[in-house]
Amino acid sequence: MKTRDRILNAALTLFNEQGERKVSTNHLAAHLGMSPGNLYYHFKNKQDIIYYLFLQHEAQIESALSLPKGAQGIMTLEDKFNVMLGVFESLWHYRFIHLNLSQLLSDNPKLKQRYREFYQACLGKLDAVYQGLNEAGIISISQEQRKGLVTNTWINVTGWFAFLQSCVLEEGQSISKNMVEGGMYQVLQLESPYINPDYLADIDALKQAYQLALV
Amino acid sequence: MKTRDRILNAALTLFNEQGERKVSTNHLAAHLGMSPGNLYYHFKNKQDIIYYLFLQHEAQIESALSLPKGAQGIMTLEDKFNVMLGVFESLWHYRFIHLNLSQLLSDNPKLKQRYREFYQACLGKLDAVYQGLNEAGIISISQEQRKGLVTNTWINVTGWFAFLQSCVLEEGQSISKNMVEGGMYQVLQLESPYINPDYLADIDALKQAYQLALV
Repeated sequence: MKTRDRILNAALTLFNEQGERKVSTNHLAAHLGMSPGNLYYHFKNKQDIIYYLFLQHEAQIESALSLPKGAQGIMTLEDKFNVMLGVFESLWHYRFIHLNLSQLLSDNPKLKQRYREFYQACLGKLDAVYQGLNEAGIISISQEQRKGLVTNTWINVTGWFAFLQSCVLEEGQSISKNMVEGGMYQVLQLESPYINPDYLADIDALKQAYQLALV
Repeated sequence: MKTRDRILNAALTLFNEQGERKVSTNHLAAHLGMSPGNLYYHFKNKQDIIYYLFLQHEAQIESALSLPKGAQGIMTLEDKFNVMLGVFESLWHYRFIHLNLSQLLSDNPKLKQRYREFYQACLGKLDAVYQGLNEAGIISISQEQRKGLVTNTWINVTGWFAFLQSCVLEEGQSISKNMVEGGMYQVLQLESPYINPDYLADIDALKQAYQLALV
């Protein structure tokens, strides 16, 4: 593995496990058995490492939100589930970002600008997913409803970590993969008024699975 | 006005205008033309002031969410609108809390505990509001849908400030009352699939009003 990738991987692990605030570049270099000078040869500073980790996360999310091009070009319920699963996998994998997003953005203007562009790109892709579901007859939704649903889904998913931290986590407890995936239940609830009757039973089964994950 | 209330009022104004982080107790005492010793006679420290301001906000929100007891004991669309308006007025009035909530909670274990209790109380009251709307025939909603809607409304409303900060505000721009109230559009979108046809035109008129507020 290239040194640059080794640094990014180790940083991601330590940031996720210990919290980004508690991990310095010196700490990271020591963990890698590398001189701070060697680390600075690859990255200007910690902000720079965070920025490149964000780019990896962004690429994963944008890929998860990309419409599957199946044989018939028509979305299936499985495609829809894979979109959601891909998004929540990546949220978990890069959870240090979402556990401290407002601070990271206010510390780093370059990341803040990139995040706004990411948001715009995601809105477009999420809108296309709901359009695909509508065309496939899985949901029935008007254009205005779709626009509202896209924004609400974004706010819900990106607000899920803050919600877990402020309202769900007990003192001393830390966030688990199940808790993060519990956010899928809330997304399914947002979507459920638009689901066509033929698909309700499948969606309900999914909801049951992810509602339990939160408890 | 009692000195204690003068301190709370001045703190709220300065926190909202300058950001809580930038306002020290010395700064606050100077602003009030008062010795730091006099200020400390009333409040142990800045955390203590923040805690009591949160209690004021909490009381306002819980009052806004309390079901109106009209002549017939049946909710009207106006009652529903007043609930929402009362909540968003208070969010704006105590905006310094929501502009920096995760930091405030992690700095202050007593506030964190209180916030969790506040969340539980709000869930119950919000659930009663939706139950009232259902009984009045303004919405049609099952128990499971209501539970999902209550949680999603909470996540949306409390996540609205972070959304504005990370995705909507331009560089150097600060949050306005219109932007905060723009969150009502998103709440109306969350609720709209459950609105009964007789009420759709009124709700649409409201949505138009608050969608414009955001732009």
